[in-house]
Amino acid sequence: MTPETNHRMPSATPPSNEAGELPQPYLLFLGDIVEPGYAKTAFGLRDWAPERCVGEFACDGAKVSAGLAPMTPEQARSAGARSMVIGVANPGGLIPDGWLPGLLQALEAGLDLVGGMHARLHEIAVLRESAARLGRRLVDVREPPRGIPVASGRKRSGKRLLTVGTDCALGKKYTALVLARAFERRGLDVDFRATGQTGILIAGRGIPLDAVVCDFAAGAAEALSPAAGAQHWDVIEGQGSLMHPAYAGVSLALLHGSQPDVIVVCHEHGREHVLGYPGLLLPSIEETIDLALRLGRRTNPSIRCAGVSLNTAALDPAHAQRVIAAESERLGCAVADPMRGGLALDRLVEECLA
Amino acid sequence: MTPETNHRMPSATPPSNEAGELPQPYLLFLGDIVEPGYAKTAFGLRDWAPERCVGEFACDGAKVSAGLAPMTPEQARSAGARSMVIGVANPGGLIPDGWLPGLLQALEAGLDLVGGMHARLHEIAVLRESAARLGRRLVDVREPPRGIPVASGRKRSGKRLLTVGTDCALGKKYTALVLARAFERRGLDVDFRATGQTGILIAGRGIPLDAVVCDFAAGAAEALSPAAGAQHWDVIEGQGSLMHPAYAGVSLALLHGSQPDVIVVCHEHGREHVLGYPGLLLPSIEETIDLALRLGRRTNPSIRCAGVSLNTAALDPAHAQRVIAAESERLGCAVADPMRGGLALDRLVEECLA
Repeated sequence: MTPETNHRMPSATPPSNEAGELPQPYLLFLGDIVEPGYAKTAFGLRDWAPERCVGEFACDGAKVSAGLAPMTPEQARSAGARSMVIGVANPGGLIPDGWLPGLLQALEAGLDLVGGMHARLHEIAVLRESAARLGRRLVDVREPPRGIPVASGRKRSGKRLLTVGTDCALGKKYTALVLARAFERRGLDVDFRATGQTGILIAGRGIPLDAVVCDFAAGAAEALSPAAGAQHWDVIEGQGSLMHPAYAGVSLALLHGSQPDVIVVCHEHGREHVLGYPGLLLPSIEETIDLALRLGRRTNPSIRCAGVSLNTAALDPAHAQRVIAAESERLGCAVADPMRGGLALDRLVEECLA
Repeated sequence: MTPETNHRMPSATPPSNEAGELPQPYLLFLGDIVEPGYAKTAFGLRDWAPERCVGEFACDGAKVSAGLAPMTPEQARSAGARSMVIGVANPGGLIPDGWLPGLLQALEAGLDLVGGMHARLHEIAVLRESAARLGRRLVDVREPPRGIPVASGRKRSGKRLLTVGTDCALGKKYTALVLARAFERRGLDVDFRATGQTGILIAGRGIPLDAVVCDFAAGAAEALSPAAGAQHWDVIEGQGSLMHPAYAGVSLALLHGSQPDVIVVCHEHGREHVLGYPGLLLPSIEETIDLALRLGRRTNPSIRCAGVSLNTAALDPAHAQRVIAAESERLGCAVADPMRGGLALDRLVEECLA
């Protein structure tokens, strides 16, 4: 790999996520799914961006609801919706044919379509043709913006916090969202910076880091949290784990490009193996902290760990409180479950801002 | 990032590098460049794959030669060439208009075009149209193959060696090529596995790791060196450095996906700063070894470092020999400059095979 100057990531497909802001508010599309586990995006939007969601729409036979008002695309358009968001994934990651009538109905009703899957909306001819005919946009939030540069490694002004995980899918995004809101409540100037599809839909903008070409991944992380005022905070959604056999490269590029002043390490209590890799033990919290600080020092020598975000969703409240206190004692740092709030969370926030 | 099943990297552009083998032998195209530094690919092909090169062809005004027989595309076709390879980069990484007549001449003469830049041949309308009309292929070796899966993390049979650098552009590819040839001379069953454009042109196949979408980079490294016989060696071309502010993610994905049994750490004697990042000190050789072993253990717990490849091209032979001996003493391991050969290289090869 030779450094090249004036070198930017080529965009092979028309970038639809370029202008930054997504068309809002949204109608949430729930497809025909019957398993709530596939509706993570819809639930995330309901919980974190209710002001951006006017209602929900599903195919006949769907068994999952996000608890929003059911409405047709036509009703949603009248209620002010500007796009319909595909808020579910199907097991194969593709867009099944059964969803097409609903998607076409939304385009006809005057809504843009927003998708967050690796399968791209604009690769489906009937959607592409209808959108072109109707003057609607197909927005793939997993399509990175055009012209991402190679990382410069130069330190930027402003403060940055990155959530770092022991694994995928255990609360890095929610931790970042909770911390950003807590910073905001304390009157700080703060932006949540989204790096994955659900986060981008919640924030209404961001860069899908896992879809960026390798060479430009750290550069994308730099672009995501640009230079800012000295007291401004970017709270950046982490991805993957530095010990993940498939995604560690993404995590390292994000760590280097984010140049965090502060990391918060996220773990799910009781998870022992890498999700989807049953033979592979998770790294310990201590090892994750140590590795993230060692690697992160490369682009920010003053990086520090403020504490641990512990996902205790599987425990009852009293048990969770005991586990959180014991982990804080054992690790000698602030530990909180951001979804439970309380004094533990206050302490974690204080450690972030210390 | 949520693990997804049946999830493969989408290919937004028609993959031209899919079948694996490139059309050979080559005519080398030298463009109109006047600086030898931009002809790295052509020089690499001349040095490492002379049997694949029938001659060279340049625009009027070019000042650089690879020392091959000058010939027109028509003459090259008669001499058996099947493609013309763009063996130079221009400073902007683009294909200048001044090269187009030469490229079109090659298509007309019956040669396919092979390019290794981030700028893609098939994005230039006049080349695309001429190739379609003439039934020629435009092969972009920086276009990854279709359908790369997410890494499985599963240990594969066979033996693997990865070259790991303290920086970019200091000899990881050449070290891998020299070691693969040395293994071959000892009668071993070995494949050189290319991960960058020049390596791919030399080997006639490979995967351009830096052009793979992040999520699939470790999976690409797994696909590059598939399960093999217990005594078979893959000698894998390294990329970037684990401490590089822009490319460390690529290096880590390659390390995890390659699952090397053996690493050889590559360094250029006297280089103190990251190439292109004048304010950033290089990691030491010891730190690079330590970090690569620590991270590499994640997918191959028995990873070990066989020694160091030291680029001493700037030194005279006696000085180089002293430096190599002193570094071997200081580090307590085999150190050799693969381009100088000799007993030091023999020892490094023995340590790799120990």
